[in-house]
Amino acid sequence: MLSSIPSKLDIVTSHERIKSYINRTPVLFSEIINELCGCEVFFKCENLQKIGAFKARGGLNAALSLDKELIANGLCTHSSGNHAQAVALAAKMLHTKAYIVMPNNAPKPKVIGVINLGAELIFCEPTLEARENGVREIIDKTGAHFIHPFDNYDVIAGQATAAKELLEENPDLDSILAPVGGGGLLSGTGLSVKYFSQKAKVYAGEPEGAADAVLSFKSGKVEKAPYINTIADGLLTNLSEKTLEIIKDTVEDILLVNDEEILIALMLIFNNLKIIIEPSCAVPLAALIKNKHLFKNQQVGIILSGGNVDLSKLSF
Amino acid sequence: MLSSIPSKLDIVTSHERIKSYINRTPVLFSEIINELCGCEVFFKCENLQKIGAFKARGGLNAALSLDKELIANGLCTHSSGNHAQAVALAAKMLHTKAYIVMPNNAPKPKVIGVINLGAELIFCEPTLEARENGVREIIDKTGAHFIHPFDNYDVIAGQATAAKELLEENPDLDSILAPVGGGGLLSGTGLSVKYFSQKAKVYAGEPEGAADAVLSFKSGKVEKAPYINTIADGLLTNLSEKTLEIIKDTVEDILLVNDEEILIALMLIFNNLKIIIEPSCAVPLAALIKNKHLFKNQQVGIILSGGNVDLSKLSF
Repeated sequence: MLSSIPSKLDIVTSHERIKSYINRTPVLFSEIINELCGCEVFFKCENLQKIGAFKARGGLNAALSLDKELIANGLCTHSSGNHAQAVALAAKMLHTKAYIVMPNNAPKPKVIGVINLGAELIFCEPTLEARENGVREIIDKTGAHFIHPFDNYDVIAGQATAAKELLEENPDLDSILAPVGGGGLLSGTGLSVKYFSQKAKVYAGEPEGAADAVLSFKSGKVEKAPYINTIADGLLTNLSEKTLEIIKDTVEDILLVNDEEILIALMLIFNNLKIIIEPSCAVPLAALIKNKHLFKNQQVGIILSGGNVDLSKLSF
Repeated sequence: MLSSIPSKLDIVTSHERIKSYINRTPVLFSEIINELCGCEVFFKCENLQKIGAFKARGGLNAALSLDKELIANGLCTHSSGNHAQAVALAAKMLHTKAYIVMPNNAPKPKVIGVINLGAELIFCEPTLEARENGVREIIDKTGAHFIHPFDNYDVIAGQATAAKELLEENPDLDSILAPVGGGGLLSGTGLSVKYFSQKAKVYAGEPEGAADAVLSFKSGKVEKAPYINTIADGLLTNLSEKTLEIIKDTVEDILLVNDEEILIALMLIFNNLKIIIEPSCAVPLAALIKNKHLFKNQQVGIILSGGNVDLSKLSF
């Protein structure tokens, strides 16, 4: 269990720890997208990760870092989405129980994912307070170990392994973009670039309708978004002290995009990469397209964060 | 240019010829799909191939096999879909012209794909006769070289390289399934399994609403479908003499599925593999699910043929 910002060795060790449990996700590209962006873009496809999102990395790393006695009574977390599935997966692999507190408006595919992994679901009102109360009750009752979705150095070290793999395949990247919600993926990406790249700069994409990180990045302390209204439902959370500290040190800039720009980027990925991503996952490409001048003629990496989207509206 | 059924060496040579022009597509799997099928399924993702379909392999192999003089006046073909894009791509790479005769009801994304590749489009009525007349006119006028979508041994040898790659990664497969339309992919798959596997059996999936191949397989001569009515719009064509001869020799059975079964398989792939496929591409998984007893506890390969589907109906 890490108690300070992950070092280079911590990330290498984390990668070794989770390697056999996760997918080494492919890196895809599209000549049409390259032409449109005026640079070469390499997409690290974490939508093709176990549970359909990068969160498998952090959840597994945190769970596998715990002593056996600590997990004997199970793992628990609160999450509306991919982290819930990550903890459920980790518990299944470690043959212990998972207790997931989920807001009662969580997307159906994510609820089904958690149930399929055999976790115990506890629904609550969709407020942070209700979620935290739900988790406290579970811990009191069961003694389960809580894994925070991002305010946890082992989780951050796990998420860092996506950019580490990308840099192993493309060591010459000039820039890497990731989306930012709570900042677990972004801070992990920042650390991996700091440790494993000679030159790359890290940028984040953030929705205008959940613009907390850009404010926190400027003020230097954790801020709330002025308002919440975006289709990027995976990026609604604020940063934490731990993620902000790393982001301040390792990230070049946070770029805002609106929902229309996110949807255009999403359809570009659907049509040209032939993969399914969730709206949150299209945010970095939208940010790149909006700020082409920053990336002209570069080799750019994008971490595609996840693909858990409700496709029941699709018809033929 | 091959004038007889491709040998093992012909397929190896074809693979070397096209290797640097195509994507080595990833092989994906899903534990949920494995559990549902009662076997381990490895999906060879040709939807992530250049132009979004395996057809890039055959089109490129045929074009690259031609003498320079033969392609000087351009390449031509008639196709409503992916083969059109394959020939357009080959022409672009060989710095010659492509003339594509397309039925005026061809799916929009495929029309756009051909235009984006810089080919000259000639629309015609949606009948085989109009398409063949269109091509004859082009050849008379331009001297372009015609590449048939499947009745061509170089095309078949190119399509064979998908199963060859899959067997390189999973040499122990017990069965491989592919969809069947004109039979280019299926006959190529049959040859690769014959040459590169010790034990695998080849099965085809075919839509009930375009059930020509199953009839031809039984009677031994090229038959027409009793009726045409299916969402699997890439599988409407009859076999040819060349493809049927190889299929008779190398394929174990052809399994029929209806549109409802195809749609269930399609959604399973969307939701669990997080990739976009076209309905035709879901046919082999539908056939596997319908005939689980044939594949119980096996290691099964499925060639996912393509992902060019109109997603404009999707909304968030």
